[in-house]
Amino acid sequence: MSSKFKNAKRIEGLDSNVWIEFTKLAADPSVVNLGQGLPDISLPMYIKEELSKIATTDSLNQYTRGFGHPSLVKALSCLYEKLYQNQINPDKEILVTVGAYGSLFNAIHGLIDEGDEVIIIVPFYDCYEPMVRMAGATPVFVPLRSKPVDGRKWSSSDWTLDPQELASKFNSKTKAIILNTPHNPLGKVYTREELQVIADLCIKYDTLCISDEVYEWLVYAGNKHLKIATFPGMWERTITIGSAGKTFSVTGWKLGWSIGPDHLIKHLQTVQQNTVYTCATPLQEALAHAFWIDIKRMDDPECYFNSLPKELELKRDRMVHLLESIGLKPIVPDGGYFIIADVSLMDADLSDMENNNEPYDYKFVKWMTKNKKLSAIPVSAFCNSETKLQFEKFVRFCFIKVVHLWQETMLLMLCSFCCILSRST
Amino acid sequence: MSSKFKNAKRIEGLDSNVWIEFTKLAADPSVVNLGQGLPDISLPMYIKEELSKIATTDSLNQYTRGFGHPSLVKALSCLYEKLYQNQINPDKEILVTVGAYGSLFNAIHGLIDEGDEVIIIVPFYDCYEPMVRMAGATPVFVPLRSKPVDGRKWSSSDWTLDPQELASKFNSKTKAIILNTPHNPLGKVYTREELQVIADLCIKYDTLCISDEVYEWLVYAGNKHLKIATFPGMWERTITIGSAGKTFSVTGWKLGWSIGPDHLIKHLQTVQQNTVYTCATPLQEALAHAFWIDIKRMDDPECYFNSLPKELELKRDRMVHLLESIGLKPIVPDGGYFIIADVSLMDADLSDMENNNEPYDYKFVKWMTKNKKLSAIPVSAFCNSETKLQFEKFVRFCFIKVVHLWQETMLLMLCSFCCILSRST
Ligand SMILES: Cc1ncc(COP(=O)(O)O)c(C=O)c1O
Ligand SMILES: Cc1ncc(COP(=O)(O)O)c(C=O)c1O
Repeated sequence: MSSKFKNAKRIEGLDSNVWIEFTKLAADPSVVNLGQGLPDISLPMYIKEELSKIATTDSLNQYTRGFGHPSLVKALSCLYEKLYQNQINPDKEILVTVGAYGSLFNAIHGLIDEGDEVIIIVPFYDCYEPMVRMAGATPVFVPLRSKPVDGRKWSSSDWTLDPQELASKFNSKTKAIILNTPHNPLGKVYTREELQVIADLCIKYDTLCISDEVYEWLVYAGNKHLKIATFPGMWERTITIGSAGKTFSVTGWKLGWSIGPDHLIKHLQTVQQNTVYTCATPLQEALAHAFWIDIKRMDDPECYFNSLPKELELKRDRMVHLLESIGLKPIVPDGGYFIIADVSLMDADLSDMENNNEPYDYKFVKWMTKNKKLSAIPVSAFCNSETKLQFEKFVRFCFIKVVHLWQETMLLMLCSFCCILSRST
Repeated sequence: MSSKFKNAKRIEGLDSNVWIEFTKLAADPSVVNLGQGLPDISLPMYIKEELSKIATTDSLNQYTRGFGHPSLVKALSCLYEKLYQNQINPDKEILVTVGAYGSLFNAIHGLIDEGDEVIIIVPFYDCYEPMVRMAGATPVFVPLRSKPVDGRKWSSSDWTLDPQELASKFNSKTKAIILNTPHNPLGKVYTREELQVIADLCIKYDTLCISDEVYEWLVYAGNKHLKIATFPGMWERTITIGSAGKTFSVTGWKLGWSIGPDHLIKHLQTVQQNTVYTCATPLQEALAHAFWIDIKRMDDPECYFNSLPKELELKRDRMVHLLESIGLKPIVPDGGYFIIADVSLMDADLSDMENNNEPYDYKFVKWMTKNKKLSAIPVSAFCNSETKLQFEKFVRFCFIKVVHLWQETMLLMLCSFCCILSRST
């Protein structure tokens, strides 16, 4: 085959992808898919209705402004001005992108050079690493570590960064740190003190912060989502990223946004205009309408920003209970819609799973999908190769799902299996 | 300001963009915008209705397969199998992208390395050059040149590549040539002989071909759109790009596709999974439905692939007539929905336009927008800096528009202006 058919060097080794692999596995309709974060709860009526109406207006099916549909950036600036308690210029300080994914890519591609270092906290949303590598930069990893919890429930807040260890990763080559709060897959919501440590280091080392806050509304009782961009000295060096998919449970719309100072956002705009140019108009217009509905009732419990976390908190508690009842040890998340659990306690017999070089959790999920018709995502997929071992006992379950009886049945099946195992050993 | 706030080197100098500049200019509601290719004809009913229906189905608002929604790649493979007279694997030989723009970016980013050369034919759709530069490659330009036409109507087919000149641009560093047929902005539809010259060179120099065919259905009487990928020896080295925006006049949907051999498409897929991951589900599902409707009636004059070019051909003829009637010399396009015309004959007084370093056509369009309330796009925006002079007498008008009386009035206004000018000199 001609050497001209080869991939460009920048994507060398970046072709494997956990979603593609495990979504394929879970495609069997008899499998209960608690893997990908794919809401199957019912959507807010008004967002569907807005799109349905807008679709019939010819002009709303044509190109719109490349950096964000005017009515959408207006709605976003109005919403975030409340949260930042500061003015936000809709044209210069906001960029609408193809999902939060597009914002991450635009930020990394627009700001990170070959040879730069970018700090990534482990575990991490899996695309951070290949995006940084595609920019020719070096990812520098720092893990969240858990305190011992003895008999207590294990919580995502038991997982923290060691400030000294974090500081040791910063140097003059550090161009940025990627932060994710609320965190996927752990569900950790960073506290003010934790964010202050990060902010201090960013300022000390003159570093950018890319803050992925797609689950900003999904925070459970006793926790509060804080924006690092509002910390003193941080606005000028932070890109904050949001997602319509997570905000309104419409993951299939693939709309996201970056918010930050003009002097950074303009570089993301340059990437956008040379990669996709603009985002879908009817979806942007419908999203703007949905935002206005909820911006006007933010103190109302009916507001989706308030009602969705309430609904999810119940599901979280139910999932925790189910996982515990089958003998697993879940880490109770303070935010987001994922829960991770230690599956090694189950002591499943994975000896007949092919590919013995795979991490334990990969084999476990494949085994569970095949034998128990339940799929999930291995947590080592959210790790770099050096830290996979640290997390390979964990599996991630998604709980933004209607908990059908048959799903519970699945878990009970696992449970019975587990009992048999424990009796036989 | 901190040096860490600077753009990444790969986007240095790529921040200016003709669409952003001229769309802003034309935003004044009193201006008739014949600039951007923004259809304001009425859309096919069924495509709007499909989207309107689909919007209300919860699951169709969630993530779908990253490389293309299953029902859409199925429809695309069915359609293109007819056109290629060959099987096309929907999963491995098709990739759905964020518009044709996304396909161009994925192809260039996935296949072109730093130091490679990429041949671009001038004039060209403006994003080709910055995309190639962002990949660190060197664009090598070769112009279309016009034969003298004497008294005859000037046609886009009078503009051709000089085979010797084209051959001189190929060498061992040439990784790809970007072809665009039907052509924007000229409207040229490449003939079999012309494509054979390009194919022979691609094979001789073992070069890829990125063939942008977004206007594939918009070809006027006496012309036929041919796919270079169907030429002997070309399938294995060609990525062919299409656009829903152009096929169904829904530019705001931003869906496109790449078709090619597995060994090339897989590299585009790698870029996609590390930049946007997936495209909007409801739009993909609605597009699939629209395709099925028209695939089933391809021989019927009602089929949109047949009816739209018929409708546009009338508009083209009307526009030619209008431009001629005001003393301009249009180049009659054989395809697409743009027409370019030599405006230097109008001898407008541009002396009070600021920025004297701009090409003539930039100043002319700004003058026309301001004084005549008619906007268009300067053709030198489709040129590299060395060839701008060659095309700066031309301006591009879009004719996928309802020709309101007031638009005609605008042109008549220009006409009167023109008469006054000619009398006063
Ligand atoms: C932390 C995090 N960031 C980004 C994304 C991507 O969001 P989008 O679908 O808006 O691109 C996800 C999706 O799961 C996520 O969990
Ligand atoms: C030749 C050509 N290629 C690509 C595109 C971009 O198409 P899309 O809107 O599908 O990204 C256009 C749009 O005008 C075009 O004219």
